[in-house]
Amino acid sequence: MKDHPIKQEIFAADKAINNKDFDNIPNFYTEDAALVVKPGLVASGRTAIAEAHKEISKYFNGSLEVSQGDVQIIEAGNVALVHAKTFVKSQLKLDSKFSTERESVYVYVRDSDGKWRCAIDNSYGAELLQAK
Amino acid sequence: MKDHPIKQEIFAADKAINNKDFDNIPNFYTEDAALVVKPGLVASGRTAIAEAHKEISKYFNGSLEVSQGDVQIIEAGNVALVHAKTFVKSQLKLDSKFSTERESVYVYVRDSDGKWRCAIDNSYGAELLQAK
Repeated sequence: MKDHPIKQEIFAADKAINNKDFDNIPNFYTEDAALVVKPGLVASGRTAIAEAHKEISKYFNGSLEVSQGDVQIIEAGNVALVHAKTFVKSQLKLDSKFSTERESVYVYVRDSDGKWRCAIDNSYGAELLQAK
Repeated sequence: MKDHPIKQEIFAADKAINNKDFDNIPNFYTEDAALVVKPGLVASGRTAIAEAHKEISKYFNGSLEVSQGDVQIIEAGNVALVHAKTFVKSQLKLDSKFSTERESVYVYVRDSDGKWRCAIDNSYGAELLQAK
């Protein structure tokens, strides 16, 4: 059985990130998409998002490896909410390894061409919430 | 300063739920919205969602009290992702109190009439994810 179209898009986007295929990244996002770069910092629009992915890749010395575990999708017409376990691995500096697991949240929108694109990319999930 | 329009909608929806004003509830949701009633069970469409809220209210003996703590909103054009601390209180049975805190996730869409409506209502947040 084929994966849900949104799952296929997420896996393809991960592949583009892992292969540093930055020219391909904008096509995974809607025109006015938002990427949470870190809590408090949001990149808005395709161009800013592709730039942000380049910067993140540089920060991890080009050794970033992103993958997903369980993925749950809730659809409502042309909008979908995605919860995913995301694994981020990297050789952070030349002598240290970085590995973390996140509970990502993505909002996907079915664009006018029928392709699902990421409108909001928040790999920090509920970590954005203040403890109050 | 006035709250963000989406925050105002969330507070108004909470008020409708707490007041058992079920006739008013559909207007807070998009036509084809989805409500996670519990993990594995989704109500789809305004009518089914209003019915589900009635059932949930009955389950809690009409004593349900919903409110929000911190609310974080990420906008991308006409779509927004909302993370919220949600407090659910109730006198579950005549002799027992129920109180819980959730990390809710909502997707809001700006409808053609300019009003933000809830397209996906998932008060369970990342609890939907399998531990794998």
